[in-house]
Amino acid sequence: MIDLPRSSLGFVWLVGAGPGAIDLITVRGLNLLREADAVVCDDLVNRELLQHCRPEAEQHFAGKRAGCHSSTQAEINALLVALGRAGKKTVRLKGGDPLIFGRAGEELQALRAAGIPYAIVPGVTAATAASAAAGLVLTHREHASAVIFITGHQCADNNRILDWALFARSRATLCFYMGVRSLPEIAAQLMQHGMAADMPLAVISEASWPTQKISYGTLDRVGELVAGVIGQPALIIVGLVARPTIFPAELASLQAGVRENFTINVSV
Amino acid sequence: MIDLPRSSLGFVWLVGAGPGAIDLITVRGLNLLREADAVVCDDLVNRELLQHCRPEAEQHFAGKRAGCHSSTQAEINALLVALGRAGKKTVRLKGGDPLIFGRAGEELQALRAAGIPYAIVPGVTAATAASAAAGLVLTHREHASAVIFITGHQCADNNRILDWALFARSRATLCFYMGVRSLPEIAAQLMQHGMAADMPLAVISEASWPTQKISYGTLDRVGELVAGVIGQPALIIVGLVARPTIFPAELASLQAGVRENFTINVSV
Repeated sequence: MIDLPRSSLGFVWLVGAGPGAIDLITVRGLNLLREADAVVCDDLVNRELLQHCRPEAEQHFAGKRAGCHSSTQAEINALLVALGRAGKKTVRLKGGDPLIFGRAGEELQALRAAGIPYAIVPGVTAATAASAAAGLVLTHREHASAVIFITGHQCADNNRILDWALFARSRATLCFYMGVRSLPEIAAQLMQHGMAADMPLAVISEASWPTQKISYGTLDRVGELVAGVIGQPALIIVGLVARPTIFPAELASLQAGVRENFTINVSV
Repeated sequence: MIDLPRSSLGFVWLVGAGPGAIDLITVRGLNLLREADAVVCDDLVNRELLQHCRPEAEQHFAGKRAGCHSSTQAEINALLVALGRAGKKTVRLKGGDPLIFGRAGEELQALRAAGIPYAIVPGVTAATAASAAAGLVLTHREHASAVIFITGHQCADNNRILDWALFARSRATLCFYMGVRSLPEIAAQLMQHGMAADMPLAVISEASWPTQKISYGTLDRVGELVAGVIGQPALIIVGLVARPTIFPAELASLQAGVRENFTINVSV
Protein backbone atom coordinates (compact mmCIF):
# COMPACT_ATOMS: atom_id res chain seq x y z
CA MET A 1 0.00 0.00 0.00
CA ILE A 2 1.44 3.34 -0.99
CA ASP A 3 0.27 6.74 0.21
CA LEU A 4 0.52 8.68 -3.00
CA PRO A 5 1.59 12.30 -3.00
CA ARG A 6 -1.28 14.75 -3.40
CA SER A 7 -0.35 16.21 -6.76
CA SER A 8 -1.92 16.40 -10.20
CA LEU A 9 1.47 15.68 -11.71
CA GLY A 10 2.90 12.22 -11.81
CA PHE A 11 5.71 11.17 -9.55
CA VAL A 12 9.06 9.61 -10.35
CA TRP A 13 10.85 7.29 -7.94
CA LEU A 14 14.50 6.62 -8.69
CA VAL A 15 14.78 3.12 -7.28
CA GLY A 16 17.98 1.16 -6.70
CA ALA A 17 17.36 -2.38 -7.96
CA GLY A 18 20.44 -3.73 -6.19
CA PRO A 19 23.22 -5.78 -7.76
CA GLY A 20 21.25 -8.36 -9.71
CA ALA A 21 19.63 -11.10 -7.63
CA ILE A 22 15.94 -10.25 -7.60
CA ASP A 23 15.70 -10.60 -3.83
CA LEU A 24 18.40 -7.99 -3.23
CA ILE A 25 16.03 -5.13 -4.07
CA THR A 26 14.57 -3.40 -1.01
CA VAL A 27 11.04 -4.12 0.12
CA ARG A 28 10.14 -0.50 -0.65
CA GLY A 29 11.53 -0.76 -4.16
CA LEU A 30 9.55 -3.93 -4.80
CA ASN A 31 6.33 -2.40 -3.47
CA LEU A 32 6.73 0.64 -5.72
CA LEU A 33 7.39 -1.61 -8.70
CA ARG A 34 4.15 -3.46 -8.00
CA GLU A 35 2.12 -0.24 -7.96
CA ALA A 36 3.78 1.67 -10.80
CA ASP A 37 1.99 2.90 -13.92
CA ALA A 38 5.29 2.97 -15.80
CA VAL A 39 8.78 1.53 -15.36
CA VAL A 40 11.98 2.76 -17.02
CA CYS A 41 14.53 -0.01 -16.62
CA ASP A 42 18.31 0.17 -16.98
CA ASP A 43 20.45 -2.34 -18.89
CA LEU A 44 22.12 -3.83 -15.85
CA VAL A 45 18.90 -4.47 -13.95
CA ASN A 46 17.64 -8.05 -13.70
CA ARG A 47 14.56 -8.04 -15.90
CA GLU A 48 12.96 -10.81 -13.85
CA LEU A 49 12.05 -8.02 -11.44
CA LEU A 50 9.53 -6.79 -13.98
CA GLN A 51 7.39 -9.87 -13.35
CA HIS A 52 6.16 -7.97 -10.29
CA CYS A 53 4.71 -5.11 -12.38
CA ARG A 54 1.00 -4.81 -13.05
CA PRO A 55 0.15 -6.23 -16.49
CA GLU A 56 -1.02 -2.81 -17.68
CA ALA A 57 2.17 -1.01 -16.55
CA GLU A 58 4.19 0.59 -19.35
CA GLN A 59 7.69 -0.89 -19.64
CA HIS A 60 10.56 1.11 -21.11
CA PHE A 61 14.14 -0.08 -21.51
CA ALA A 62 16.90 2.46 -21.37
CA GLY A 63 20.54 2.08 -20.73
CA LYS A 64 23.99 2.87 -21.81
CA ARG A 65 26.26 -0.16 -21.82
CA ALA A 66 29.88 0.73 -22.44
CA GLY A 67 30.36 1.24 -26.15
CA CYS A 68 26.72 0.60 -27.05
CA HIS A 69 24.44 3.59 -26.56
CA SER A 70 20.95 2.16 -26.72
CA SER A 71 19.47 5.38 -25.33
CA THR A 72 21.19 8.70 -24.78
CA GLN A 73 20.99 10.29 -21.36
CA ALA A 74 19.00 13.14 -22.89
CA GLU A 75 16.41 10.67 -24.21
CA ILE A 76 16.07 9.03 -20.80
CA ASN A 77 15.67 12.43 -19.13
CA ALA A 78 12.99 13.43 -21.63
CA LEU A 79 11.13 10.15 -21.15
CA LEU A 80 11.02 10.58 -17.36
CA VAL A 81 9.74 14.15 -17.72
CA ALA A 82 7.09 13.07 -20.25
CA LEU A 83 5.86 10.25 -17.98
CA GLY A 84 5.70 12.64 -15.04
CA ARG A 85 3.76 15.22 -17.08
CA ALA A 86 1.36 12.49 -18.19
CA GLY A 87 0.51 11.92 -14.52
CA LYS A 88 2.12 8.49 -14.29
CA LYS A 89 3.50 6.98 -11.13
CA THR A 90 6.87 6.08 -12.61
CA VAL A 91 9.63 3.85 -11.28
CA ARG A 92 13.06 4.55 -12.73
CA LEU A 93 14.83 1.29 -11.96
CA LYS A 94 18.62 1.61 -11.80
CA GLY A 95 21.28 -1.02 -11.05
CA GLY A 96 22.79 -0.90 -7.56
CA ASP A 97 22.16 2.36 -5.74
CA PRO A 98 20.89 5.32 -7.80
CA LEU A 99 23.35 7.86 -6.37
CA ILE A 100 26.56 5.83 -6.80
CA PHE A 101 27.82 6.08 -10.41
CA GLY A 102 24.24 5.99 -11.70
CA ARG A 103 24.06 9.28 -13.65
CA ALA A 104 21.16 10.19 -11.35
CA GLY A 105 22.41 13.78 -11.23
CA GLU A 106 21.29 14.48 -14.76
CA GLU A 107 17.90 12.80 -14.31
CA LEU A 108 17.18 14.69 -11.09
CA GLN A 109 18.18 17.96 -12.73
CA ALA A 110 15.76 17.33 -15.61
CA LEU A 111 12.92 16.44 -13.20
CA ARG A 112 13.58 19.52 -11.08
CA ALA A 113 13.70 21.78 -14.12
CA ALA A 114 10.33 20.39 -15.26
CA GLY A 115 8.83 20.60 -11.78
CA ILE A 116 8.09 16.87 -11.59
CA PRO A 117 8.10 15.61 -8.00
CA TYR A 118 10.44 12.74 -7.23
CA ALA A 119 11.97 10.69 -4.48
CA ILE A 120 14.96 8.40 -4.29
CA VAL A 121 14.86 4.85 -2.93
CA PRO A 122 18.38 3.70 -2.07
CA GLY A 123 19.66 0.26 -3.04
CA VAL A 124 22.46 -2.20 -2.40
CA THR A 125 25.45 -0.88 -4.30
CA ALA A 126 27.73 -3.21 -6.28
CA ALA A 127 30.70 -2.82 -3.92
CA THR A 128 28.87 -4.12 -0.88
CA ALA A 129 27.22 -6.90 -2.88
CA ALA A 130 30.59 -7.98 -4.25
CA SER A 131 32.25 -7.85 -0.86
CA ALA A 132 29.38 -9.85 0.66
CA ALA A 133 29.74 -12.47 -2.06
CA ALA A 134 33.45 -12.84 -1.41
CA GLY A 135 33.29 -12.36 2.37
CA LEU A 136 35.70 -9.40 2.20
CA VAL A 137 35.28 -6.91 5.03
CA LEU A 138 35.69 -3.54 3.27
CA THR A 139 36.46 -1.62 6.45
CA HIS A 140 38.21 -4.29 8.50
CA ARG A 141 39.54 -2.48 11.57
CA GLU A 142 43.01 -3.95 11.29
CA HIS A 143 43.48 -3.25 7.60
CA ALA A 144 41.48 -0.26 6.36
CA SER A 145 40.68 3.17 7.72
CA ALA A 146 38.17 3.92 4.98
CA VAL A 147 36.72 2.60 1.74
CA ILE A 148 36.78 4.47 -1.58
CA PHE A 149 34.39 3.86 -4.48
CA ILE A 150 35.96 4.94 -7.78
CA THR A 151 34.78 4.64 -11.35
CA GLY A 152 37.20 2.70 -13.52
CA HIS A 153 35.36 4.05 -16.53
CA GLN A 154 37.26 7.27 -16.74
CA CYS A 155 38.51 6.70 -20.30
CA ALA A 156 35.04 7.49 -21.60
CA ASP A 157 34.51 10.18 -19.05
CA ASN A 158 36.97 13.04 -19.22
CA ASN A 159 35.22 14.98 -16.49
CA ARG A 160 36.62 12.65 -13.89
CA ILE A 161 40.24 13.31 -13.00
CA LEU A 162 41.40 10.57 -10.69
CA ASP A 163 43.58 11.12 -7.66
CA TRP A 164 46.00 8.23 -8.24
CA ALA A 165 48.65 9.46 -5.83
CA LEU A 166 46.10 9.77 -3.05
CA PHE A 167 44.51 6.39 -3.75
CA ALA A 168 47.87 4.61 -3.95
CA ARG A 169 49.11 5.98 -0.65
CA SER A 170 45.94 5.67 1.39
CA ARG A 171 45.17 2.95 3.91
CA ALA A 172 41.71 2.62 2.41
CA THR A 173 40.15 -0.27 0.56
CA LEU A 174 39.65 0.72 -3.09
CA CYS A 175 36.56 -0.42 -5.01
CA PHE A 176 36.61 0.22 -8.75
CA TYR A 177 33.25 0.16 -10.54
CA MET A 178 33.19 -0.62 -14.26
CA GLY A 179 36.95 -1.06 -14.34
CA VAL A 180 37.62 -4.52 -15.77
CA ARG A 181 38.65 -3.24 -19.16
CA SER A 182 40.96 -0.71 -17.48
CA LEU A 183 42.37 -3.07 -14.84
CA PRO A 184 45.88 -3.25 -16.34
CA GLU A 185 45.96 0.56 -16.43
CA ILE A 186 44.54 0.86 -12.90
CA ALA A 187 47.15 -1.56 -11.55
CA ALA A 188 49.96 0.25 -13.39
CA GLN A 189 48.85 3.64 -12.07
CA LEU A 190 48.63 2.40 -8.47
CA MET A 191 52.09 0.78 -8.60
CA GLN A 192 53.59 3.82 -10.31
CA HIS A 193 52.23 5.99 -7.49
CA GLY A 194 53.77 3.82 -4.81
CA MET A 195 51.38 0.99 -4.01
CA ALA A 196 53.10 -2.34 -3.32
CA ALA A 197 53.19 -4.72 -6.29
CA ASP A 198 52.01 -7.60 -4.10
CA MET A 199 48.93 -5.73 -2.86
CA PRO A 200 46.01 -8.20 -3.00
CA LEU A 201 43.02 -7.61 -5.21
CA ALA A 202 39.84 -9.43 -6.03
CA VAL A 203 37.71 -9.25 -9.18
CA ILE A 204 34.06 -10.10 -8.59
CA SER A 205 31.99 -10.32 -11.76
CA GLU A 206 28.21 -10.49 -11.84
CA ALA A 207 27.98 -10.43 -8.04
CA SER A 208 24.82 -12.14 -6.76
CA TRP A 209 23.90 -13.55 -10.21
CA PRO A 210 24.06 -17.33 -10.72
CA THR A 211 27.02 -16.67 -13.02
CA GLN A 212 28.97 -14.85 -10.29
CA LYS A 213 32.76 -15.35 -10.36
CA ILE A 214 35.42 -14.34 -7.88
CA SER A 215 39.13 -14.27 -8.72
CA TYR A 216 42.03 -13.26 -6.54
CA GLY A 217 45.41 -11.88 -7.47
CA THR A 218 47.93 -9.15 -6.83
CA LEU A 219 48.57 -5.82 -8.53
CA ASP A 220 51.53 -7.09 -10.53
CA ARG A 221 49.60 -10.03 -11.98
CA VAL A 222 46.24 -8.84 -13.25
CA GLY A 223 46.35 -10.19 -16.79
CA GLU A 224 44.77 -13.56 -16.05
CA LEU A 225 42.08 -11.98 -13.84
CA VAL A 226 40.71 -9.87 -16.63
CA ALA A 227 40.66 -12.48 -19.37
CA GLY A 228 37.41 -14.23 -18.49
CA VAL A 229 35.25 -11.30 -17.52
CA ILE A 230 35.66 -8.60 -20.18
CA GLY A 231 32.27 -7.18 -21.08
CA GLN A 232 30.63 -8.34 -17.85
CA PRO A 233 29.74 -6.05 -14.98
CA ALA A 234 32.47 -6.55 -12.43
CA LEU A 235 33.88 -4.92 -9.37
CA ILE A 236 37.56 -4.72 -8.41
CA ILE A 237 38.54 -4.58 -4.74
CA VAL A 238 42.14 -3.56 -4.02
CA GLY A 239 43.62 -3.62 -0.53
CA LEU A 240 44.78 -5.73 2.38
CA VAL A 241 41.23 -6.98 2.93
CA ALA A 242 41.06 -8.47 -0.58
CA ARG A 243 42.57 -11.84 0.29
CA PRO A 244 40.47 -15.01 0.18
CA THR A 245 39.09 -15.57 3.65
CA ILE A 246 36.24 -17.94 3.01
CA PHE A 247 36.04 -21.69 3.55
CA PRO A 248 38.22 -23.61 1.07
CA ALA A 249 35.21 -25.74 0.05
CA GLU A 250 33.04 -22.71 -0.44
CA LEU A 251 35.84 -21.02 -2.34
CA ALA A 252 36.08 -23.90 -4.77
CA SER A 253 32.38 -23.73 -5.57
CA LEU A 254 32.52 -19.94 -5.84
CA GLN A 255 35.39 -20.13 -8.28
CA ALA A 256 33.33 -22.50 -10.36
CA GLY A 257 30.66 -19.83 -10.30
CA VAL A 258 28.32 -22.06 -8.35
CA ARG A 259 26.96 -21.48 -4.86
CA GLU A 260 24.43 -24.27 -4.75
CA ASN A 261 24.58 -24.72 -1.01
CA PHE A 262 23.76 -21.08 -0.51
CA THR A 263 20.79 -20.65 -2.80
CA ILE A 264 17.97 -18.60 -1.33
CA ASN A 265 14.74 -18.40 -3.25
CA VAL A 266 12.64 -15.29 -3.19
CA SER A 267 9.06 -15.62 -2.02
CA VAL A 268 7.21 -12.34 -1.71
CA MET B 1 11.07 -20.49 0.90
CA ILE B 2 14.71 -21.07 1.70
CA ASP B 3 16.87 -23.93 0.49
CA LEU B 4 18.78 -24.68 3.64
CA PRO B 5 22.38 -25.74 3.48
CA ARG B 6 22.87 -29.47 3.98
CA SER B 7 24.76 -29.42 7.23
CA SER B 8 24.24 -30.70 10.75
CA LEU B 9 25.57 -27.41 12.08
CA GLY B 10 23.45 -24.32 12.18
CA PHE B 11 24.01 -21.45 9.80
CA VAL B 12 24.57 -17.78 10.47
CA TRP B 13 23.48 -15.08 8.03
CA LEU B 14 24.96 -11.64 8.61
CA VAL B 15 22.12 -9.53 7.28
CA GLY B 16 22.20 -5.80 6.60
CA ALA B 17 18.98 -4.35 7.97
CA GLY B 18 19.43 -1.08 6.09
CA PRO B 19 19.32 2.41 7.55
CA GLY B 20 16.19 2.24 9.69
CA ALA B 21 12.90 2.35 7.78
CA ILE B 22 11.60 -1.21 7.92
CA ASP B 23 10.96 -1.33 4.18
CA LEU B 24 14.60 -0.54 3.36
CA ILE B 25 15.73 -4.05 4.26
CA THR B 26 16.22 -6.30 1.23
CA VAL B 27 13.63 -8.89 0.30
CA ARG B 28 16.20 -11.62 1.01
CA GLY B 29 16.92 -10.20 4.45
CA LEU B 30 13.23 -10.10 5.27
CA ASN B 31 12.68 -13.67 4.08
CA LEU B 32 15.55 -14.94 6.21
CA LEU B 33 14.20 -13.08 9.22
CA ARG B 34 10.85 -14.78 8.75
CA GLU B 35 12.43 -18.24 8.71
CA ALA B 36 15.08 -17.83 11.41
CA ASP B 37 15.29 -19.91 14.59
CA ALA B 38 17.26 -17.13 16.29
CA VAL B 39 17.95 -13.43 15.72
CA VAL B 40 20.80 -11.40 17.16
CA CYS B 41 19.87 -7.75 16.71
CA ASP B 42 22.09 -4.67 16.87
CA ASP B 43 21.24 -1.47 18.71
CA LEU B 44 20.76 0.65 15.63
CA VAL B 45 18.37 -1.74 13.92
CA ASN B 46 14.68 -0.83 13.85
CA ARG B 47 13.11 -3.35 16.22
CA GLU B 48 9.83 -3.23 14.33
CA LEU B 49 11.54 -5.58 11.88
CA LEU B 50 11.32 -8.29 14.53
CA GLN B 51 7.55 -8.41 14.11
CA HIS B 52 8.30 -10.56 11.05
CA CYS B 53 10.01 -13.28 13.13
CA ARG B 54 8.26 -16.51 14.00
CA PRO B 55 6.80 -16.36 17.51
CA GLU B 56 9.06 -19.17 18.67
CA ALA B 57 12.25 -17.54 17.33
CA GLU B 58 14.84 -16.63 19.96
CA GLN B 59 15.56 -12.89 20.09
CA HIS B 60 18.86 -11.56 21.37
CA PHE B 61 19.85 -7.91 21.61
CA ALA B 62 23.48 -6.99 21.25
CA GLY B 63 25.10 -3.77 20.40
CA LYS B 64 27.70 -1.27 21.31
CA ARG B 65 26.40 2.29 21.26
CA ALA B 66 29.17 4.86 21.69
CA GLY B 67 30.04 5.09 25.34
CA CYS B 68 27.56 2.41 26.44
CA HIS B 69 28.78 -1.14 26.00
CA SER B 70 25.70 -3.27 26.36
CA SER B 71 27.51 -6.34 24.97
CA THR B 72 31.20 -6.74 24.26
CA GLN B 73 32.24 -7.87 20.80
CA ALA B 74 33.62 -11.06 22.36
CA GLU B 75 30.21 -11.82 23.90
CA ILE B 76 28.47 -11.31 20.55
CA ASN B 77 31.00 -13.56 18.79
CA ALA B 78 30.51 -16.27 21.43
CA LEU B 79 26.72 -16.04 21.12
CA LEU B 80 26.82 -16.48 17.34
CA VAL B 81 29.11 -19.50 17.67
CA ALA B 82 26.89 -21.03 20.36
CA LEU B 83 23.76 -20.60 18.24
CA GLY B 84 25.51 -22.11 15.24
CA ARG B 85 26.70 -25.08 17.32
CA ALA B 86 23.18 -25.57 18.62
CA GLY B 87 22.06 -26.07 15.01
CA LYS B 88 20.05 -22.85 14.80
CA LYS B 89 19.36 -20.96 11.61
CA THR B 90 20.54 -17.61 12.94
CA VAL B 91 20.13 -14.12 11.52
CA ARG B 92 22.67 -11.59 12.79
CA LEU B 93 20.87 -8.35 12.00
CA LYS B 94 23.21 -5.37 11.63
CA GLY B 95 22.41 -1.74 10.81
CA GLY B 96 23.14 -0.63 7.25
CA ASP B 97 25.44 -3.01 5.37
CA PRO B 98 27.32 -5.64 7.41
CA LEU B 99 30.71 -5.01 5.78
CA ILE B 100 30.81 -1.21 6.09
CA PHE B 101 31.88 -0.21 9.63
CA GLY B 102 29.93 -3.08 11.12
CA ARG B 103 32.67 -4.99 12.97
CA ALA B 104 31.72 -7.97 10.82
CA GLY B 105 35.41 -8.90 10.53
CA GLU B 106 35.55 -10.13 14.09
CA GLU B 107 32.29 -12.04 13.88
CA LEU B 108 33.30 -13.78 10.64
CA GLN B 109 36.66 -14.68 12.13
CA ALA B 110 34.95 -16.28 15.15
CA LEU B 111 32.54 -18.23 12.93
CA ARG B 112 35.36 -19.44 10.69
CA ALA B 113 37.47 -20.49 13.66
CA ALA B 114 34.53 -22.50 15.01
CA GLY B 115 33.71 -23.99 11.61
CA ILE B 116 30.18 -22.56 11.55
CA PRO B 117 28.93 -21.96 8.00
CA TYR B 118 27.76 -18.45 7.21
CA ALA B 119 26.74 -16.12 4.42
CA ILE B 120 26.47 -12.36 4.13
CA VAL B 121 23.38 -10.53 2.88
CA PRO B 122 24.30 -6.99 1.87
CA GLY B 123 22.17 -4.02 2.88
CA VAL B 124 21.61 -0.35 2.15
CA THR B 125 24.45 1.48 3.85
CA ALA B 126 23.85 4.71 5.77
CA ALA B 127 25.68 6.92 3.27
CA THR B 128 23.43 6.02 0.35
CA ALA B 129 20.31 6.23 2.52
CA ALA B 130 21.34 9.67 3.75
CA SER B 131 22.17 10.89 0.26
CA ALA B 132 18.85 9.56 -1.04
CA ALA B 133 17.00 11.37 1.73
CA ALA B 134 18.70 14.65 0.89
CA GLY B 135 18.82 14.16 -2.88
CA LEU B 136 22.61 14.52 -2.93
CA VAL B 137 24.31 12.72 -5.81
CA LEU B 138 27.43 11.26 -4.18
CA THR B 139 29.29 10.76 -7.45
CA HIS B 140 27.92 13.65 -9.51
CA ARG B 141 29.98 13.67 -12.70
CA GLU B 142 30.66 17.38 -12.54
CA HIS B 143 31.72 17.48 -8.91
CA ALA B 144 33.17 14.20 -7.65
CA SER B 145 35.52 11.59 -9.08
CA ALA B 146 34.93 9.17 -6.22
CA VAL B 147 33.21 8.78 -2.88
CA ILE B 148 34.97 7.89 0.38
CA PHE B 149 33.31 6.32 3.43
CA ILE B 150 35.22 7.12 6.62
CA THR B 151 34.52 6.41 10.25
CA GLY B 152 34.36 9.55 12.35
CA HIS B 153 34.66 7.37 15.39
CA GLN B 154 38.43 7.21 15.45
CA CYS B 155 38.77 8.69 18.94
CA ALA B 156 37.60 5.40 20.41
CA ASP B 157 39.43 3.37 17.81
CA ASN B 158 43.17 3.84 17.79
CA ASN B 159 43.70 1.20 15.11
CA ARG B 160 42.43 3.60 12.48
CA ILE B 161 44.91 6.20 11.34
CA LEU B 162 43.08 8.57 9.07
CA ASP B 163 44.44 9.93 5.82
CA TRP B 164 43.49 13.58 6.33
CA ALA B 165 45.71 14.81 3.52
CA LEU B 166 44.06 12.37 1.12
CA PHE B 167 40.57 13.33 2.24
CA ALA B 168 41.24 17.06 2.11
CA ARG B 169 42.94 17.11 -1.27
CA SER B 170 40.87 14.60 -3.19
CA ARG B 171 38.02 15.48 -5.52
CA ALA B 172 35.90 12.85 -3.80
CA THR B 173 32.73 13.25 -1.80
CA LEU B 174 33.46 12.39 1.85
CA CYS B 175 30.93 10.50 3.97
CA PHE B 176 31.71 10.30 7.69
CA TYR B 177 29.92 7.60 9.66
CA MET B 178 29.42 8.09 13.38
CA GLY B 179 31.15 11.46 13.27
CA VAL B 180 28.72 13.96 14.77
CA ARG B 181 30.53 14.20 18.07
CA SER B 182 33.81 14.68 16.21
CA LEU B 183 32.50 17.09 13.55
CA PRO B 184 34.38 20.14 14.86
CA GLU B 185 37.61 18.11 14.83
CA ILE B 186 36.85 16.66 11.38
CA ALA B 187 36.22 20.14 9.96
CA ALA B 188 39.39 21.51 11.56
CA GLN B 189 41.51 18.65 10.20
CA LEU B 190 40.14 19.05 6.68
CA MET B 191 40.76 22.82 6.63
CA GLN B 192 44.22 22.38 8.15
CA HIS B 193 45.07 19.96 5.33
CA GLY B 194 43.95 22.41 2.66
CA MET B 195 40.23 22.00 2.09
CA ALA B 196 38.39 25.27 1.43
CA ALA B 197 36.64 26.73 4.46
CA ASP B 198 33.46 27.30 2.46
CA MET B 199 33.23 23.65 1.33
CA PRO B 200 29.58 22.62 1.69
CA LEU B 201 28.53 19.87 4.04
CA ALA B 202 25.29 18.24 5.08
CA VAL B 203 24.46 16.45 8.32
CA ILE B 204 21.70 13.87 7.96
CA SER B 205 20.56 12.35 11.23
CA GLU B 206 18.34 9.30 11.51
CA ALA B 207 18.07 8.95 7.72
CA SER B 208 14.84 7.21 6.67
CA TRP B 209 13.35 7.33 10.20
CA PRO B 210 10.30 9.55 10.81
CA THR B 211 12.60 11.73 12.93
CA GLN B 212 15.05 12.28 10.05
CA LYS B 213 16.71 15.73 9.95
CA ILE B 214 18.89 17.32 7.31
CA SER B 215 21.03 20.40 7.95
CA TYR B 216 23.34 22.20 5.58
CA GLY B 217 26.42 24.28 6.29
CA THR B 218 30.06 24.84 5.44
CA LEU B 219 33.28 23.58 6.99
CA ASP B 220 33.97 26.80 8.87
CA ARG B 221 30.55 26.85 10.53
CA VAL B 222 29.76 23.44 11.92
CA GLY B 223 28.88 24.37 15.50
CA GLU B 224 25.17 24.91 14.95
CA LEU B 225 24.86 21.75 12.83
CA VAL B 226 26.02 19.50 15.64
CA ALA B 227 23.95 20.98 18.45
CA GLY B 228 20.66 19.23 17.80
CA VAL B 229 21.85 15.77 16.85
CA ILE B 230 24.49 14.70 19.39
CA GLY B 231 23.84 11.11 20.45
CA GLN B 232 21.80 10.30 17.34
CA PRO B 233 23.06 8.21 14.46
CA ALA B 234 24.00 10.69 11.77
CA LEU B 235 25.97 10.87 8.60
CA ILE B 236 28.10 13.80 7.44
CA ILE B 237 28.55 14.44 3.72
CA VAL B 238 31.35 16.85 2.76
CA GLY B 239 31.93 18.03 -0.80
CA LEU B 240 30.63 20.07 -3.70
CA VAL B 241 27.61 17.80 -4.03
CA ALA B 242 26.48 18.57 -0.47
CA ARG B 243 24.45 21.67 -1.31
CA PRO B 244 20.66 21.66 -1.00
CA THR B 245 19.22 20.72 -4.37
CA ILE B 246 15.72 19.64 -3.48
CA PHE B 247 12.45 21.50 -3.91
CA PRO B 248 12.15 24.45 -1.49
CA ALA B 249 8.78 23.12 -0.27
CA GLU B 250 10.17 19.66 0.21
CA LEU B 251 13.20 21.13 1.95
CA ALA B 252 11.00 22.96 4.45
CA SER B 253 9.19 19.78 5.40
CA LEU B 254 12.46 17.84 5.55
CA GLN B 255 13.97 20.40 7.88
CA ALA B 256 10.95 20.01 10.12
CA GLY B 257 11.78 16.31 10.11
CA VAL B 258 8.52 15.52 8.32
CA ARG B 259 8.06 13.99 4.89
CA GLU B 260 4.35 13.37 5.03
CA ASN B 261 3.83 13.65 1.29
CA PHE B 262 6.38 10.94 0.71
CA THR B 263 5.26 8.28 3.16
CA ILE B 264 5.36 4.78 1.79
CA ASN B 265 3.90 2.00 3.89
CA VAL B 266 5.37 -1.44 3.85
CA SER B 267 3.11 -4.33 2.92
CA VAL B 268 4.83 -7.65 2.49
